[in-house]
Amino acid sequence: MSVSEIDRLIQQLAKLPGLGPRSARRAVLHLMTRRDSLMIPLAEAMAEAAVKVQDCEICGNLDSQSPCNICRSAKRDQKIICVVEHVSDLWALERAGAFRGLYHILGGTLSALDGIGPDDLNVENLLHRVRQGVAKEVILAMNATVDGQTTAHYLTDRLEDLDLKDGDIQITRLAHGVPVGGELDYLDDGTLTAALKSRRSV
Amino acid sequence: MSVSEIDRLIQQLAKLPGLGPRSARRAVLHLMTRRDSLMIPLAEAMAEAAVKVQDCEICGNLDSQSPCNICRSAKRDQKIICVVEHVSDLWALERAGAFRGLYHILGGTLSALDGIGPDDLNVENLLHRVRQGVAKEVILAMNATVDGQTTAHYLTDRLEDLDLKDGDIQITRLAHGVPVGGELDYLDDGTLTAALKSRRSV
Repeated sequence: MSVSEIDRLIQQLAKLPGLGPRSARRAVLHLMTRRDSLMIPLAEAMAEAAVKVQDCEICGNLDSQSPCNICRSAKRDQKIICVVEHVSDLWALERAGAFRGLYHILGGTLSALDGIGPDDLNVENLLHRVRQGVAKEVILAMNATVDGQTTAHYLTDRLEDLDLKDGDIQITRLAHGVPVGGELDYLDDGTLTAALKSRRSV
Repeated sequence: MSVSEIDRLIQQLAKLPGLGPRSARRAVLHLMTRRDSLMIPLAEAMAEAAVKVQDCEICGNLDSQSPCNICRSAKRDQKIICVVEHVSDLWALERAGAFRGLYHILGGTLSALDGIGPDDLNVENLLHRVRQGVAKEVILAMNATVDGQTTAHYLTDRLEDLDLKDGDIQITRLAHGVPVGGELDYLDDGTLTAALKSRRSV
């Protein structure tokens, strides 16, 4: 068989995370029966996003303009910068709707195993932003993994070493504890210990 | 946030089978970091397939030409037509490489529950192909489900009712039995019963 267009589409789709050859074939057949309602709009949306969406020059967020919507917004609190690993973390925080400050996307974590050092991350831009003196607090919202916490320690050191004219900035991290809706019986020892240590009076 | 291009792409991708909002977001971030190597080629492959790929007028297969590659091929045995429910079944049989005849895609099965009758399937085309007298055997390769077997019975009746000048055609079905590599302990009773009934001397 030389069904080149279909085969090529299946091969490309199978490269997406979460899709293998079998689910890519299923997806292609699904698309084929919905050409006008899904397949052509999806192809157009993908081509348009590939051209228009870019990294924000300030925070590293993905947006169709740079600086991004969040960095441009007058409604956001310019005094707080929340540092996250990936754009997906920014999206998660925005969905929660609990944060109204600015973000900074590191682009990953330090990792000795994967050979990722400070120069591979968006660190200098963060220090540059803090040096400008508008921010009064930096929230280190890396994942609660070994690499995430190593990165948080590294950033804390770098931020404390900055010689700021307006006095030091506050460096904070997310609270550890029992997830809302979580059952104690299913939690790991580390989380339970952290939740006990940080217990609060009611 | 009004990240319209990204949001639109996520919404469209989330409509694919096997992808939800979360995996669509992951896929979009994956695409965004591989614009030239994956995102743009994928968008182009999708747009091209949407325009070029069509249903074969003879068998219902998907191909960039009609009649399709298989129907055109001089190497395939014109005397055998293998009737399957979907294009994915044709793909599965072609991957196995054990069949060198022609196919016929029904487009589904009869289903009283879903209100799918004979007119909704590619049945008349099949009867028309058989009436032309080239085919000597029709393999009913529907799935071994209730709807698939109901459809096979219906097709058997219709095919036997045909008044063919060159004598009757042979109607066959796939064998039931133990899957290759399968363990008896994990097989259902129906399969075991079928495998026992159709046992062969070694």
